[in-house]
Amino acid sequence: MDLLNDETYMRLALNMAGGASGQTGVNPVVGCVVVNEGRVVGLGAHLRRGEGHAEVNALNMAGAHAKGATAYVTLEPCSHTGKLTPPCCERLIAEGVSRVVVAATDPNPRVSGRGIERLRQAGIQVDTGLLESESTALNEKFNKYIVHGVPFVTLKTAMTMDGRIATRTGHSRWITGEQSREAVHTLRHKHQGIMVGIGTIKADDPELTTRLSVPGLHPARIVVDAKLAIPEDARVLNGEADTILLASERADAGKADRLEAKGAKVLRCGDGDRVDLTKAMALLGEMGIGSILLEGGGVLNGAMLKAGLVDKMMLFYAPIIVGGEGAPSAFAFEGPEKMSEALRLNRVSMERFGDDWCMTGYPEGN
Amino acid sequence: MDLLNDETYMRLALNMAGGASGQTGVNPVVGCVVVNEGRVVGLGAHLRRGEGHAEVNALNMAGAHAKGATAYVTLEPCSHTGKLTPPCCERLIAEGVSRVVVAATDPNPRVSGRGIERLRQAGIQVDTGLLESESTALNEKFNKYIVHGVPFVTLKTAMTMDGRIATRTGHSRWITGEQSREAVHTLRHKHQGIMVGIGTIKADDPELTTRLSVPGLHPARIVVDAKLAIPEDARVLNGEADTILLASERADAGKADRLEAKGAKVLRCGDGDRVDLTKAMALLGEMGIGSILLEGGGVLNGAMLKAGLVDKMMLFYAPIIVGGEGAPSAFAFEGPEKMSEALRLNRVSMERFGDDWCMTGYPEGN
Repeated sequence: MDLLNDETYMRLALNMAGGASGQTGVNPVVGCVVVNEGRVVGLGAHLRRGEGHAEVNALNMAGAHAKGATAYVTLEPCSHTGKLTPPCCERLIAEGVSRVVVAATDPNPRVSGRGIERLRQAGIQVDTGLLESESTALNEKFNKYIVHGVPFVTLKTAMTMDGRIATRTGHSRWITGEQSREAVHTLRHKHQGIMVGIGTIKADDPELTTRLSVPGLHPARIVVDAKLAIPEDARVLNGEADTILLASERADAGKADRLEAKGAKVLRCGDGDRVDLTKAMALLGEMGIGSILLEGGGVLNGAMLKAGLVDKMMLFYAPIIVGGEGAPSAFAFEGPEKMSEALRLNRVSMERFGDDWCMTGYPEGN
Repeated sequence: MDLLNDETYMRLALNMAGGASGQTGVNPVVGCVVVNEGRVVGLGAHLRRGEGHAEVNALNMAGAHAKGATAYVTLEPCSHTGKLTPPCCERLIAEGVSRVVVAATDPNPRVSGRGIERLRQAGIQVDTGLLESESTALNEKFNKYIVHGVPFVTLKTAMTMDGRIATRTGHSRWITGEQSREAVHTLRHKHQGIMVGIGTIKADDPELTTRLSVPGLHPARIVVDAKLAIPEDARVLNGEADTILLASERADAGKADRLEAKGAKVLRCGDGDRVDLTKAMALLGEMGIGSILLEGGGVLNGAMLKAGLVDKMMLFYAPIIVGGEGAPSAFAFEGPEKMSEALRLNRVSMERFGDDWCMTGYPEGN
């Protein structure tokens, strides 16, 4: 049984925020609960970029009951102007809220602490830090993007218990079970971009859309394709979702024009044989892509890891062993000489999906 | 809070049995609780092969209080004669126990159901099946050995998240952390034999004893060494524990004599280039080795899996990625063509050891 206290109200606000995960673009997810004299009087979340913030939605519901109330907000209310919506601090003050409980401060350098300061100046009691880590985890993608301007990258792969993504003959369908595959489609919904290499397009010709038992959002499809070798009838060019091709300056301009005429966007990332992945991330960030699900093969995964561009890893393990001779690996890069120099993951957790297990971790240093 | 009921008493009996895990040789572990008029009057477990059975130890403690009591036994009481200890059924009857609760029937073909039948013939109420799967799991090694006469093999390996047991240069110390290594030494205590290939002896010259913060039992050290290439000063020949060398008939007889003079036992398993592993298991079973912890490298692990000789797998994963190019794999065998033909593990569970995770599973069909 949940006891009636600050934490219970904040959890409710966090649950609402989590419900909007994936649908706020580069904006954070935020939830708000307004409570007055022992009664929830307003509930709100930020649901879509450019539309009402969580506090505004909850205060609209509360109406006159907001006066003297406590507002539980998962993220520090905004204080800055010049963006798509007016600052929430002013609205909280105007409604006469007497106490605001904040889970996490906003890492956005334009807010960071100023929202809390503004509320206190207006005589509102502000308590911070309640369930802070839960709120921070919910916005891990936003927290990186708002500070660094480059997308948060989640590497996802499905593999055997011995780290293989195909048999020695290249056969790979399916490794994991239905529940894992549903989890992957849910991950697609929660990212703004989904990234693969040209090898995957040529081998599998995937559509790279979000397919679930309910409608989901389709991330932009991003293909690493230095030479623009993509077949012009590839399924990712079907117009079902945005498509971005990462190419070298060297790639043929005529082909680029034809691909753009089909609705794809070609981004030139360096002039080498391979795509400059660091530059690609910067350009994608400038385009407003704040999060990417990397579903690469071993080579692209390895290159992204080596370049230090992976923020999170989600490794789905099926309970099968395929044997080590010639079966392709999930991470095909030249590794270190000593075990102590291996790439280490922090904050590792395991979750079960049917017969499979998903290991989530964060590469050290990222 | 544990409620006072049959299950609570049986759990106590199972806990006692588990405490003796590893110290009963080829015998099962068994616990017994005797309860009379709301009071525990006897506790016992089978602690060592050739010494008192669980029921006998518990009845000895109960003395006259056994009359009219209920005995909770994790394994069906034995009914057969001609072994090291007299049958427990007769003792239970003689003491006037009125009810016996049994978790699992004894898979031993000489008992299997006969013990229960004998008790019922004597007018004792017998209830079976309470926490049966817990009792069966506790004796999984015994359950195989008593029926098939060959050892139960647990494959253990420590690897990176991408399935590697060393870096591309062969460097491997350490992959997993201290808690995992302590778990492995505990596993050694719980098996009668520990098996490696000659490659491991040559590369690491390990002692293969059980080293823990408390004294443990040392399993027999079993080395797969077709040509008897083992150096005569190898640490496994140090006499700290039994050593068994599995060789081909072709291996040099003079070397075999010298090794036996140092206290090792040489078992000839087939006359090929490699050790006939199926034959080796049969010979080890005949010698009274009922359980083996396989700590092989990729080649031996692969060969044992291919031969269908692995009953259980415990894969310790460290949260590190070492990269796929040239780093040795935990399972170096030629795998199947299709993913659907991969070796599948059943009843998979995960357990955390410090920063590492251990995946336990049972190869399908074994």
